[in-house]
Amino acid sequence: MKRGFEQAEYEARVAAAQLAMQQHELAAILLTTEPEVRYFTGFHTRFWESPSRPWFVVLPQSGAPIAVIPSIGEALMRRCWIDDIRCWSAPDPLDDGVSLLIGTLREVAQEGKIGVPSGLESHLRMPLADFGRLQAAGLVFGDDAGIVAQLRAIKSEAEIEKIARACAIAGRAFDRLGDVARQGAKLDAVFRGFQGLLLAEGADWVPYLAGGAGPKGYSDVISPAGPQVLAMGDVLMLDTGAVWDGYFCDFDRNFSIGLPARQAARPWSQLQEAALAGFEAAQPGAEAADVWRAMAAVTGKSDTAGRLGHGLGMQLTEGLSLTEKDHTILEPGMVITLEPGVETGDGMMLVHEENIVIREGGAQILSPWASGPMPVL
Amino acid sequence: MKRGFEQAEYEARVAAAQLAMQQHELAAILLTTEPEVRYFTGFHTRFWESPSRPWFVVLPQSGAPIAVIPSIGEALMRRCWIDDIRCWSAPDPLDDGVSLLIGTLREVAQEGKIGVPSGLESHLRMPLADFGRLQAAGLVFGDDAGIVAQLRAIKSEAEIEKIARACAIAGRAFDRLGDVARQGAKLDAVFRGFQGLLLAEGADWVPYLAGGAGPKGYSDVISPAGPQVLAMGDVLMLDTGAVWDGYFCDFDRNFSIGLPARQAARPWSQLQEAALAGFEAAQPGAEAADVWRAMAAVTGKSDTAGRLGHGLGMQLTEGLSLTEKDHTILEPGMVITLEPGVETGDGMMLVHEENIVIREGGAQILSPWASGPMPVL
Repeated sequence: MKRGFEQAEYEARVAAAQLAMQQHELAAILLTTEPEVRYFTGFHTRFWESPSRPWFVVLPQSGAPIAVIPSIGEALMRRCWIDDIRCWSAPDPLDDGVSLLIGTLREVAQEGKIGVPSGLESHLRMPLADFGRLQAAGLVFGDDAGIVAQLRAIKSEAEIEKIARACAIAGRAFDRLGDVARQGAKLDAVFRGFQGLLLAEGADWVPYLAGGAGPKGYSDVISPAGPQVLAMGDVLMLDTGAVWDGYFCDFDRNFSIGLPARQAARPWSQLQEAALAGFEAAQPGAEAADVWRAMAAVTGKSDTAGRLGHGLGMQLTEGLSLTEKDHTILEPGMVITLEPGVETGDGMMLVHEENIVIREGGAQILSPWASGPMPVL
Repeated sequence: MKRGFEQAEYEARVAAAQLAMQQHELAAILLTTEPEVRYFTGFHTRFWESPSRPWFVVLPQSGAPIAVIPSIGEALMRRCWIDDIRCWSAPDPLDDGVSLLIGTLREVAQEGKIGVPSGLESHLRMPLADFGRLQAAGLVFGDDAGIVAQLRAIKSEAEIEKIARACAIAGRAFDRLGDVARQGAKLDAVFRGFQGLLLAEGADWVPYLAGGAGPKGYSDVISPAGPQVLAMGDVLMLDTGAVWDGYFCDFDRNFSIGLPARQAARPWSQLQEAALAGFEAAQPGAEAADVWRAMAAVTGKSDTAGRLGHGLGMQLTEGLSLTEKDHTILEPGMVITLEPGVETGDGMMLVHEENIVIREGGAQILSPWASGPMPVL
């Protein structure tokens, strides 16, 4: 499978953004975060792990995007489809790209409004003091009207293929979990071993892994692993966000250690039933809240994670949330997770997660759908 | 080695921050990013990979920190030393913690100024529109006067031990690189294999890996790997940020493929000489710029990466930069990288990186210091 995207796909993303910018009277959009920059330019690096340098892309209302970036990124950006690349030697404690960015934004936006992604789950990846300098220079900023988030929510076939590949990689790694997890193994060793399996099965990297284990499940789903020893009758859950070519899978699997966890049998059936109900409800035209309602009808309204699924793509979680309050309309091309949870008593829970894509006729499975009894390790 | 820190260490961090807050007349500090929250609370999870929910910690001028967090994090935060934990069910499209945070900040700061880390390499991890709501509520924000960054720059012995352990893990993985890298291997497979070695040697996870290969080195140091085949005479460089218990190493190694890369012999000696010059210059009381100068005197002023090293700790890069412009004074307990680079022609370069800690008597090595000819795979 080819890495990256055809230039035409980037051009289509820019054109769609620019059409919306005209409607919302935005002279430019300022992008500062990894997925936003990559979505429009194809600039793909793990170097964002370093917080030291800001990176900017300016999307004008017409014409090609302009990259305003640290010189360390110039060679890589030159290999993208972007021609207008303006660099400074960063980090610069006195002027870390600010004057270069002010000049670019003035040139592009003039007196017009500059949109900045400002809604739910966004953030501005630059020092607040430097953003103050942009404002003090007379530039006018406002919300981007959700343009970037809405575009990213609908995946192209090429994007869906990458997510499907990440799902397949994780599916194969889960199939081999018995290589690294069994009664007596320590949970932190299992975490290391499973990440190794994900890499061996083809993941580029493993940005996310969480999980837990216990006779009645686990107390939360976000903790790192400690040296806890897996015991006969435990339920072990691993939840991974593995990446292929910059796209995530995000699903989990539950396993019984040594023998079927009897206490988990009923919640496990409930979870499978809830996931199926969510799958059937995930029709184009339905609201995110409808899918939530279908699953909550099975599991009850327990608030184990604040939501019962979410969008998925260039980020582990992105876009809509399956909650009572989210009225986003499902559209073909949206990739989401179904993530029901049930409380099992004593503050413990079980959760289960699958990945699907919304299609014209209904949902399509991306992760290898779990069915039948909980697998035993 | 024990994970986490004694409660006394968190209390000392808070006390030091509060002393500085009094001097700067800050009624509170608002923390929103992963390392900031973890530094004061011990809240440690890879769940920050999900951008969907904001997380807040309010540091009052006196008294214990207050966590204002999504309910999905409550169980984990309860296992930290923090007692005052206020939760909401996130994500909430109408009020994602904003009113809860406003109430908390009013209670703590009253009419006083609330510091927010705003300087170089900081960002505010919450939607800009929500920050606007905090301001509209009459809360008064300003810079945190660099208090958080300055505290984090000086590592405790417990922190240094974790970084040293991450360095040792990466050192063992580099020693085994021949298991996965040789003439004819594809670079992306080498990247996957090396991450597997890091995990096998004890890394909790591998947030960062970059590198490159070619007869004269590589064109940049931040690119992901493609299917390029390693050829006889190539120099292969891998640069990793592997983590143990939330602390990074960040160093690289260069290898010759098949036979010693003759063209690389001279730049390789220069890099070693520059690293040694940096090591000797890294004395308490020296400026970051002095260390830069010592290395640049060997390599010339080529701007391969914008700087010749940087601080290191809970983040891959943090704190000072070894540049001409950074006048930060080195103090005992600072952990930094020495990262000289030389241009080798045709837009290619070689870089080399070591990790050290500043001690009373001079610098101490943390990464296994590379010396002698470039190792051959």
